Amino acid sequence: MKRIGFQFKIGPERLAEYKEHHKHVWPEMLQALRESGWHNYSLFLRADGLVFGYFETEESLSAAQAKMAATEVNTRWQQFMSPFTDTNARPDETFLELEEYFHLD
Amino acid sequence: MKRIGFQFKIGPERLAEYKEHHKHVWPEMLQALRESGWHNYSLFLRADGLVFGYFETEESLSAAQAKMAATEVNTRWQQFMSPFTDTNARPDETFLELEEYFHLD
Repeated sequence: MKRIGFQFKIGPERLAEYKEHHKHVWPEMLQALRESGWHNYSLFLRADGLVFGYFETEESLSAAQAKMAATEVNTRWQQFMSPFTDTNARPDETFLELEEYFHLD
Repeated sequence: MKRIGFQFKIGPERLAEYKEHHKHVWPEMLQALRESGWHNYSLFLRADGLVFGYFETEESLSAAQAKMAATEVNTRWQQFMSPFTDTNARPDETFLELEEYFHLD
């Protein structure tokens, strides 16, 4: 299993609303993530809207993203979340992968 | 087990050297982390020196940090790493905890 770290940005104006949506992620979106190999997936927020994502997957971020991109529910979710990013982009098109330089089991 | 996300900053000038040290973290430092409840601990780097840390622990970031602060090896390691931060501070005194707003097992 590989460990993936990435970041993206949410606009600071509507953070409370953005967070609230993440307490009620659609069950079919959660199922698509599971079936696309997103394991132990967490999202962390800095007060200014910077987001850090962490998950574990068998292959790579790009492979896990490609599997999600093939699902209809992901398109709907990303469109739903686009107004919350700082550029009105689909969040998943702005992911910046980070380099793991240390790990301790 | 709680999932912890935090960030700190490394100066961009000596990133290669900083990363190299993390390929050879002292065994007694790794052991202190294990005994202080730092599990599945990863550090991720952005090209400008922003670091994202992730680990799992039974209680909290502050409790896990307090246990490390009580070890002699942590003092030595943090002093060794201080010249690499952007403010010459001990890295562990600059950790900014992030808020987990989403999780999927």
